[in-house]
Amino acid sequence: VALSAVLYGAKDLRIENRPVPEPAAGEVEVRIGAGGICGTDLHYFNHGGFGVVRLREPLVLGHEIAGTITKVGDGVADVALGQRVAVNPSHPCNACKYCLKGLQNHCLDMRFYGSAMRFPHVQGAFQQKLVCHASQAIPIPDTLSLNEAACAEPLAVGLHGVRRAGDLVGKRVLITGAGPIGVLTAMAARRAGASEIIVTDIVDHPLSIARECGADQTINTAASPELLAPLVAGKDGVDVLFECSGSNRALVSALAVVRPHGIIVQIGLGGDFTFLMNLVVAKEIDLRGSFRFHEEFHAAVQFLATQRIVVQSLLTQTVPLSDAVRGFALANDRQRAIKVQIAFD
Amino acid sequence: VALSAVLYGAKDLRIENRPVPEPAAGEVEVRIGAGGICGTDLHYFNHGGFGVVRLREPLVLGHEIAGTITKVGDGVADVALGQRVAVNPSHPCNACKYCLKGLQNHCLDMRFYGSAMRFPHVQGAFQQKLVCHASQAIPIPDTLSLNEAACAEPLAVGLHGVRRAGDLVGKRVLITGAGPIGVLTAMAARRAGASEIIVTDIVDHPLSIARECGADQTINTAASPELLAPLVAGKDGVDVLFECSGSNRALVSALAVVRPHGIIVQIGLGGDFTFLMNLVVAKEIDLRGSFRFHEEFHAAVQFLATQRIVVQSLLTQTVPLSDAVRGFALANDRQRAIKVQIAFD
Amino acid sequence: VALSAVLYGAKDLRIENRPVPEPAAGEVEVRIGAGGICGTDLHYFNHGGFGVVRLREPLVLGHEIAGTITKVGDGVADVALGQRVAVNPSHPCNACKYCLKGLQNHCLDMRFYGSAMRFPHVQGAFQQKLVCHASQAIPIPDTLSLNEAACAEPLAVGLHGVRRAGDLVGKRVLITGAGPIGVLTAMAARRAGASEIIVTDIVDHPLSIARECGADQTINTAASPELLAPLVAGKDGVDVLFECSGSNRALVSALAVVRPHGIIVQIGLGGDFTFLMNLVVAKEIDLRGSFRFHEEFHAAVQFLATQRIVVQSLLTQTVPLSDAVRGFALANDRQRAIKVQIAFD
Amino acid sequence: VALSAVLYGAKDLRIENRPVPEPAAGEVEVRIGAGGICGTDLHYFNHGGFGVVRLREPLVLGHEIAGTITKVGDGVADVALGQRVAVNPSHPCNACKYCLKGLQNHCLDMRFYGSAMRFPHVQGAFQQKLVCHASQAIPIPDTLSLNEAACAEPLAVGLHGVRRAGDLVGKRVLITGAGPIGVLTAMAARRAGASEIIVTDIVDHPLSIARECGADQTINTAASPELLAPLVAGKDGVDVLFECSGSNRALVSALAVVRPHGIIVQIGLGGDFTFLMNLVVAKEIDLRGSFRFHEEFHAAVQFLATQRIVVQSLLTQTVPLSDAVRGFALANDRQRAIKVQIAFD
Repeated sequence: VALSAVLYGAKDLRIENRPVPEPAAGEVEVRIGAGGICGTDLHYFNHGGFGVVRLREPLVLGHEIAGTITKVGDGVADVALGQRVAVNPSHPCNACKYCLKGLQNHCLDMRFYGSAMRFPHVQGAFQQKLVCHASQAIPIPDTLSLNEAACAEPLAVGLHGVRRAGDLVGKRVLITGAGPIGVLTAMAARRAGASEIIVTDIVDHPLSIARECGADQTINTAASPELLAPLVAGKDGVDVLFECSGSNRALVSALAVVRPHGIIVQIGLGGDFTFLMNLVVAKEIDLRGSFRFHEEFHAAVQFLATQRIVVQSLLTQTVPLSDAVRGFALANDRQRAIKVQIAFD
Repeated sequence: VALSAVLYGAKDLRIENRPVPEPAAGEVEVRIGAGGICGTDLHYFNHGGFGVVRLREPLVLGHEIAGTITKVGDGVADVALGQRVAVNPSHPCNACKYCLKGLQNHCLDMRFYGSAMRFPHVQGAFQQKLVCHASQAIPIPDTLSLNEAACAEPLAVGLHGVRRAGDLVGKRVLITGAGPIGVLTAMAARRAGASEIIVTDIVDHPLSIARECGADQTINTAASPELLAPLVAGKDGVDVLFECSGSNRALVSALAVVRPHGIIVQIGLGGDFTFLMNLVVAKEIDLRGSFRFHEEFHAAVQFLATQRIVVQSLLTQTVPLSDAVRGFALANDRQRAIKVQIAFD
Repeated sequence: VALSAVLYGAKDLRIENRPVPEPAAGEVEVRIGAGGICGTDLHYFNHGGFGVVRLREPLVLGHEIAGTITKVGDGVADVALGQRVAVNPSHPCNACKYCLKGLQNHCLDMRFYGSAMRFPHVQGAFQQKLVCHASQAIPIPDTLSLNEAACAEPLAVGLHGVRRAGDLVGKRVLITGAGPIGVLTAMAARRAGASEIIVTDIVDHPLSIARECGADQTINTAASPELLAPLVAGKDGVDVLFECSGSNRALVSALAVVRPHGIIVQIGLGGDFTFLMNLVVAKEIDLRGSFRFHEEFHAAVQFLATQRIVVQSLLTQTVPLSDAVRGFALANDRQRAIKVQIAFD
Repeated sequence: VALSAVLYGAKDLRIENRPVPEPAAGEVEVRIGAGGICGTDLHYFNHGGFGVVRLREPLVLGHEIAGTITKVGDGVADVALGQRVAVNPSHPCNACKYCLKGLQNHCLDMRFYGSAMRFPHVQGAFQQKLVCHASQAIPIPDTLSLNEAACAEPLAVGLHGVRRAGDLVGKRVLITGAGPIGVLTAMAARRAGASEIIVTDIVDHPLSIARECGADQTINTAASPELLAPLVAGKDGVDVLFECSGSNRALVSALAVVRPHGIIVQIGLGGDFTFLMNLVVAKEIDLRGSFRFHEEFHAAVQFLATQRIVVQSLLTQTVPLSDAVRGFALANDRQRAIKVQIAFD
């Protein structure tokens, strides 16, 4: 058995022992060291689901994790006990028509940790011990902390968004929303060659983190909405917008500053959005949804391992597993927290 | 002087003589034979403008025209008097930063016939005699009627939309809106290799024209909305949606049947659109605006000239210039008309 | 047992009985009606292999086939006895890293009918009865002859080449080599929207077929090499070249008429090619290899079934199975034959 | 008058005074501070031309330059005397059909400094004072030396190559040729997100510079050709090859290690290349020429200005203008020099 963070309903998160199976052939057991609280985890915690997806049985949360290999199943070659790894929470079937098109993030039989989208739910990874397929455990070097390695997952989301945008070399980029995904997308965009990066939010604290992480300019659009307009004046607007807030208002105000033939990558999840479609038509904007990631997980680990992307400034708080509830409360407070992680040992 | 169709305000269209200049160097005079009434013309006629664009001075309408060259200015080589031509109503500056990127349809100094977007307005082409730049007059063969040739402009809009969609070879295509643009886009999509084409509308008559023009299936979504669902069941949804209606409702119902990683090309102009953005994100849809055309005008003429695209079924009525007001009334009646044209001689 | 065309060595083709297994679960038995002789078959027949690929055991030739379903294995739904089908000779593993990227034509464990690339060889389909996986048997309508249906495979090769070229709408296309692949690529390019298609060869007879099949212009570059130059003069060269001859000389002469930023799709297989690389650099040409096909097989069947591509002009001769050796001799004679097929019943 | 480096024939470079015109409207005068010797300059110096392009009149060499604005013509706004600038040697007509497609590097009336391709030749920029169009002079910050700024031009070549390659995020890149273009392309590829970069050459010294500039691995393929093979074994080959040597042998050996569906960007100029075309076909490789640059010049200046690309390690020697001949001799010596620059003051 191992202690896990199990959600029984909105605000009802319990730390309890759950059985841990032996790793089957092709699997490994990982002693989890660090786990980041994602916006989705938070949504489950606050509301017991989102949209039509509702908790129908207790659900272990968590899918941003890293740890150390403690057991190795049959047939797993080249994996040493004690190897430190980032764990990829995505487990596509590799047999459906989307997997066979290379679109594994649209797998018709996807198992993604900590999700209530299917029933029985796919249990998450906020566990002291996790058994996963060996291919999900990506080795990291000693120079990388488990806390940083646990950022591989949200960084992969940012990298996937960046690849959805196409060529960023020398481009001017706007990012709406300075949460973890927004800031990691900014770092991914820089890594992909963006020349100028502007980040907006309606809260100051995350914007200060965005600046620390390399944003050239930040704008608090609640306090100073008028600072957006100069992005168009005299210049050309922005080439690419990454909408990471899930806020309709953010999209609407950003639409005005995207240049003709510009690109919008919508990463943030929200509900109904309303905007003037004529702007999309007349400017021939490309609005592209971006959902999770696939091969970008490996690239994320590699960028972290080589320190070509450095995420320490994002890691604002770590709480012990016994204090997980307090961790979720912290994660709700954008004035103080960007990324809250749980320590499992 | 020559008779022109001049709009003085909503429903106030007058046929009156206006002066015709001599063709300057590089220009030609065209005796217009046929002119199609476009949705934009109709909007000006019905409402005296659209959105924030309002009539501020009398405006000659019209930009879908074909005719015969009657005079040739200095320095125009290789153009014979009597040559029949389709006239391209688009006249970009070829000097601004968008023209120098090959995005002439986003020209910052565009002159497009019959538009009140700038002041003084750019006068239109519903004139018995039109003086234009020689490069705007594209020769057509004797086998092509002027009425068909006057369809080059809306066909170019469809071809541009098709090119915005990317590869259509073997693809399954849905088109919402069976107006002239919808039907011409269907023909353009077929020409570009689409395997299966479904067209929807809320009126039966244009759907019957769409079938005549090669649609594999048509659905009246007002009468039988349930016929959309089977497009997904057991199959994969549609690969590409061309939204040609400008109707929010059409987009919303079509969003449900676009497959993951599918493409939506928004051609229809409308106002505020509301839809569930999560669908765009989770399915990673590309929603691409498509606006007018540029080099596609030449391709449109070529497809018409070689009869690789045949538009006769669309040409539902022709009225003499003196009856233009009746023509506009007819064009408002989707139960009877698809494309109403004006005869100028 | 069923009669098959088995190659024992160069020029040693024998018609002999071979055992036919019962269809296993998921498989069907097809009574082959028509089989086309491909350039690869011919190469095996003439030389006992090509390049380093040599015959190491007797090999049933053939991979362009169509027939009628005569037995159905367990678990095969929706397939009726008597259903006429085109058979896809490509059988990727759908499990290797290339299959999982949607690049099945680069499958690391590909089984493609009639190939000596692996050992034991993958036996071909020139058999009176063939057992294959049900998913390889694509239904065709009664209106399509088995002879036409057997062209789905080489048409798929052409369609794949066309998709490698990207957007062809309104484009000017040059095709070097008027063999079956060249002519089918011409038809595929037309279907994908090409405006102007020029085909070259060094023999007149296939060029006359190319014209019948819709080429706008044909050039015998052996007799009239000077006819290539005007493609550049005053115009712009060609947008896209499909090199279907596998001839170095053809590529070299065509390179001169491809416009800056033009595209070359190399479909023809040849040996060492020599050309002035500076032309590729200074004109920024894209030279793209095109190999076999994957999903295009379905599109090919659909285009044939709907008569949007009509291949009858290509089918120059059919010989009975007992006369297969004569068929191969005929297929060697470009003055008379384009596509020679074998009748199996 | 100002001193210039004028080539009269192979090995006949003279430093002599030439008249300097007053800047016309829209022009500026720049006092050149630093000028890099490019491979093209060297080719003119060594051979008096290349291929069919021959010196037909004395030619001022040079097109990699930076300096300080000393005079401003009429109608030039926002430019201060004393402003330090990188000078873009590319001056397209912005009116021909390629410019109007956004392909200015294929301008039909291009004026590119120091080129004998047209007659009269376009004189180069190795002059103490240069008059150019104001739009060619791009401001640089005080923190950037003129020597570094003079690398904007070859860096732009690398950035253009990188953009020709498409998405590099997380990709494995091979670069053949560790000359200035090879090393700058390596840095550009890193900036664009490449995860792993391997550089090959046949001389050790430039490879050591490549390592200093961030290459993950370097291979001397003359000394250790066997080190290329492991790039394929067990792995997947390389995703993208930038061929920067212009050597046929380099391309041939690299072809073997490019993965299926991989991309080759050919930047290096050479003569006739011979290779096995079947490899390009069977692996469906994209071989793309890359020629000069256009908008990448601005991006290059920006990357240098923000120190996101740092080129100091490349700048191996600087000689005074009076010693230019010695500078050219040095530039010929790959054991000692990567980029030799001339100081003009």
